[in-house]
Amino acid sequence: MKTHETKATAELFRRALLDDVVPFWERHSIDRECGGYFTCLERDGTVYDTDNFMWLQAREVWQFAMLYNRLEQRPEWLELAAHGAAFLRQHGMDEGGNWYFSLTREGRPLIHPYNIFSDCFAAMAFSQYGLAAGDDEAKELADRTFRNILARQDDPKGKWTKAVPGTRSLKSLAMPMILANLSLELEWLLDAETCNSAIDHCIGEVFGTFLNEETGLLHESVAPDGSLVDCYEGRTINPGHGIEAMWFLMDIAERRGDTALIERCVDTALRILDFGWDDEHGGIFYFLDAQGHPPLQLEWDQKLWWVHLETMVTLLMGYRLTGREECRSRFEEVFGWAWARFPDPECGEWFGYLNRRGERLLSLKGSKWKGCFHVPRGLYLCMREIQGLGDRV
Amino acid sequence: MKTHETKATAELFRRALLDDVVPFWERHSIDRECGGYFTCLERDGTVYDTDNFMWLQAREVWQFAMLYNRLEQRPEWLELAAHGAAFLRQHGMDEGGNWYFSLTREGRPLIHPYNIFSDCFAAMAFSQYGLAAGDDEAKELADRTFRNILARQDDPKGKWTKAVPGTRSLKSLAMPMILANLSLELEWLLDAETCNSAIDHCIGEVFGTFLNEETGLLHESVAPDGSLVDCYEGRTINPGHGIEAMWFLMDIAERRGDTALIERCVDTALRILDFGWDDEHGGIFYFLDAQGHPPLQLEWDQKLWWVHLETMVTLLMGYRLTGREECRSRFEEVFGWAWARFPDPECGEWFGYLNRRGERLLSLKGSKWKGCFHVPRGLYLCMREIQGLGDRV
Repeated sequence: MKTHETKATAELFRRALLDDVVPFWERHSIDRECGGYFTCLERDGTVYDTDNFMWLQAREVWQFAMLYNRLEQRPEWLELAAHGAAFLRQHGMDEGGNWYFSLTREGRPLIHPYNIFSDCFAAMAFSQYGLAAGDDEAKELADRTFRNILARQDDPKGKWTKAVPGTRSLKSLAMPMILANLSLELEWLLDAETCNSAIDHCIGEVFGTFLNEETGLLHESVAPDGSLVDCYEGRTINPGHGIEAMWFLMDIAERRGDTALIERCVDTALRILDFGWDDEHGGIFYFLDAQGHPPLQLEWDQKLWWVHLETMVTLLMGYRLTGREECRSRFEEVFGWAWARFPDPECGEWFGYLNRRGERLLSLKGSKWKGCFHVPRGLYLCMREIQGLGDRV
Repeated sequence: MKTHETKATAELFRRALLDDVVPFWERHSIDRECGGYFTCLERDGTVYDTDNFMWLQAREVWQFAMLYNRLEQRPEWLELAAHGAAFLRQHGMDEGGNWYFSLTREGRPLIHPYNIFSDCFAAMAFSQYGLAAGDDEAKELADRTFRNILARQDDPKGKWTKAVPGTRSLKSLAMPMILANLSLELEWLLDAETCNSAIDHCIGEVFGTFLNEETGLLHESVAPDGSLVDCYEGRTINPGHGIEAMWFLMDIAERRGDTALIERCVDTALRILDFGWDDEHGGIFYFLDAQGHPPLQLEWDQKLWWVHLETMVTLLMGYRLTGREECRSRFEEVFGWAWARFPDPECGEWFGYLNRRGERLLSLKGSKWKGCFHVPRGLYLCMREIQGLGDRV
């Protein structure tokens, strides 16, 4: 990348973030009547469903608070974060402090706290918001939720677990991955011991357990000792997920000055990208079977917005930290493919779901699973990474 | 249809069933070492996963027993049904007589009995097998399982229910639908009172509760009083499911001589087909939102084998029973589209999953969800329906 190209690309990300994506959510997602956010938005931002899915409620609180903390202290961003945080605080938890999976628009619980990621995103939300607002109660809530997650991490689904104990134990990559990111997010409010031991555990798990040394791939599920389990779950590769994990760990490695870990993350990300890239139509597959068998997920060949954004972040971070040319060239390939297909110049924001050919599969901008999170976070991080390149040519 | 065309089409179905599909499963799916069946088969029949999914184990028992009972008393079919029934009887249930969702190849339980459809297919299996083998224990097991299903039907997921009680009650079309089919399947072993009251209940539920009078569509989930619930589940239409329900009910209506019910089933099936047909690429969508919003299911636009087979059965049955020209013309359209795309002339059997354009999405012949069931059952029923047309022109 030439310096002037670098600057132009950073500016492209900045404008997409601030002139398009953030205003889209400011304009369409705030539920002024009942509190919280609308996340189910048609192409033009029209609300088509009013249920509150806690992953997305918490992520939007986090998003506005993060922009306030890290980009610019705009009072409206703090207000919008406070708006969602108030709703979550009032309605989001059961009596045990576990976070529900979903609520009605009015805040009545719909789905039990069977899913620990609701808690993870709530902890992230209240940490960022507590920092932004100087709100000790929020900070305390983030801390309490984090400790509850640590306590539940070995049995995250509790009584909703469908697996018969003892026959086939599997652990999930999602757990150490989210804990790595969460530990850094909450670093400012955790004691160093808790934070460091959580992070060390995550690094050990990701590279010691989930990475297959032979293939270089990260599996979504493995046996407790890290061995491969030859079943659907054990063979599943989610390339976007594995690549995203690599920037979480590079972020940690950079703070620790651990260059060996950085190189390992870059190697792994490039390997997964190579495996997950669709040579025929471009873009990154959603799911693949490690052994080339038919994947279980019918949506396996679709191209998802978050997969491509997280990959761009990982490649730029890898390039900034290692200067490896392959990171730059692969970034340009992914960026070129994604930028031509996901953004919606007509109505703003990004489409979320493309078919294998890169054509629009759904026109929505938000849903039960897509909210104000991966697009603005990804754009923000890409901008920062490019700015961090400085005058590197 | 001209008489000679009718005969040729019946022969086409017969040959596909007996020269292609049944031999495919006979050749590739029998696990002679551990018992039960392999259902995860690559395009050429190679086994790629050995877990035993109970829906498919039970359905294959049913399939071989049904062919023995209704088509021809081939000893090998009875033996193959007995092969699967023995495995199921030995390993399939927990101590309460509930059927597991899945087992390892060796028969160790993997997934708890959270899913009542395992029980439904087990009841069907042991009923057909009991009839075929004159096996009173099998018959008794079918009866016991059926009564357990009736007892569980209002809370089918039990402790695995994720919905918080009291906020939003939904009931599912799948329940009365499968019970309608199951009651007829088990008619020979149930007392008339139990059977008739179950059937009456199903008819009342499907048309009194799940049918939206305004749109003529069957919703997958409704409020207990049948009113629409404006949420993802409440808006979901699964056209293949609704159309399949219509032949289950026509089957009942024919036995009862209820011509008004037959007409109603045909009207409803044609309406759903009209709604679910893809005017651009042909074929029937997998999921649609009743209000035209983005469906939740990412696989919404895929074309699935069973959807097209069940639709063919419904249209032929509707044509035989009413003579309505639209049934015939729509059958020819669906048949033409499906027959050109799903069967695999090279390796046998049918592909299961096509993308919206009708191109192959997965090359598998069997999986966790596709087994020895919809293809042979659909071919058999289509053949019978066409034979039943007699000399009608």
